[in-house]
Amino acid sequence: MKRGILFVVSGPSGTGKGTVLKEVFASVTNLHYSVSATTRAPRAGEVDGVNYFFVTNEQFDRMIADGEMLEYVEKFTNRYGTPRQYVERLLAEGKDVVLEIETIGAENVRRSMPECVSVFIAPPSLKELWNRLKGRSTDRSDIEKLRFETSREELASAYGYDYVVINDEVKRCADAIAAIIRAERSKVGRNKDVIKSILEN
Amino acid sequence: MKRGILFVVSGPSGTGKGTVLKEVFASVTNLHYSVSATTRAPRAGEVDGVNYFFVTNEQFDRMIADGEMLEYVEKFTNRYGTPRQYVERLLAEGKDVVLEIETIGAENVRRSMPECVSVFIAPPSLKELWNRLKGRSTDRSDIEKLRFETSREELASAYGYDYVVINDEVKRCADAIAAIIRAERSKVGRNKDVIKSILEN
Repeated sequence: MKRGILFVVSGPSGTGKGTVLKEVFASVTNLHYSVSATTRAPRAGEVDGVNYFFVTNEQFDRMIADGEMLEYVEKFTNRYGTPRQYVERLLAEGKDVVLEIETIGAENVRRSMPECVSVFIAPPSLKELWNRLKGRSTDRSDIEKLRFETSREELASAYGYDYVVINDEVKRCADAIAAIIRAERSKVGRNKDVIKSILEN
Repeated sequence: MKRGILFVVSGPSGTGKGTVLKEVFASVTNLHYSVSATTRAPRAGEVDGVNYFFVTNEQFDRMIADGEMLEYVEKFTNRYGTPRQYVERLLAEGKDVVLEIETIGAENVRRSMPECVSVFIAPPSLKELWNRLKGRSTDRSDIEKLRFETSREELASAYGYDYVVINDEVKRCADAIAAIIRAERSKVGRNKDVIKSILEN
């Protein structure tokens, strides 16, 4: 069984990662979203193992201690993490997996799974990003500024990725990511068995 | 000015490189075919510098001696080669260039321009390739066998490329190559100036 490819997709908050990836999933086949573990309570309609793996704080702590979290973040009182075993199982089954995560988490995954393919979604400009963040924010300009500074730092982390795509338009950005996924699937290193079977048949 | 990307596209004779690339050029913008130098006489309608650079045998010899040929082959009494300066100029102008060449020439280019992106077009099977070659051949089975053995060797050279695509269907194969070109354009290493300008504006 050919091992799947792990795609780590990240970018500053407000660049529209989720919207872009929805479009990517609509056009690329055999692609799987990674399911995160979380300590927050399920909302109505959410299914364990589909939307999230719902775990207790104690379970979450144990997963971290066991090195079972590829990355995790705390948002308010809830924690979210990527279970290593789950991702490993999908890859071993030959499935290509997409991790949509924040830039700090992405750095951790790139360190612990260096064979991953990392894609950075950038805003067309910092100004544009600021406008988008403003739309979301409260009126407190100190929080706004902090957010903006964070975005700037997140953006600077782009240099460490394999690919960078600009989200100037959702469709175009999604097409660029779809092309990256297809291209990576054509890498010779991942198709040695294919070449071998052509030579032998 | 951002330097262009050199795409070396090769594969065994009979895999349909030309047909596939015509389809690629129809769907990808800002892509340039490299113009070869040749010692053969121009045919009716052929324009110097467009279809080929038409040179004398002496000029061709001098180009080889000057290290000005990225690769060259001899077919019957005529010679065909890729002029390094011409390709270099296109790349310096920020143009992405496609070299469609035989596998031996491709190995030479990969050696002398290791930053190139190499794509191997493979037949779905050796049997399929044999059928295609048979269609072209004379009745002499010794020549046929030799051709077949050559194809087998050419196919084995695929392991040294960056990407491999199967030409089971022209459209699908062309789409795979178009995806590779688009993905390579999104590589972070080629977009550091883009990231910088987003950070600074």
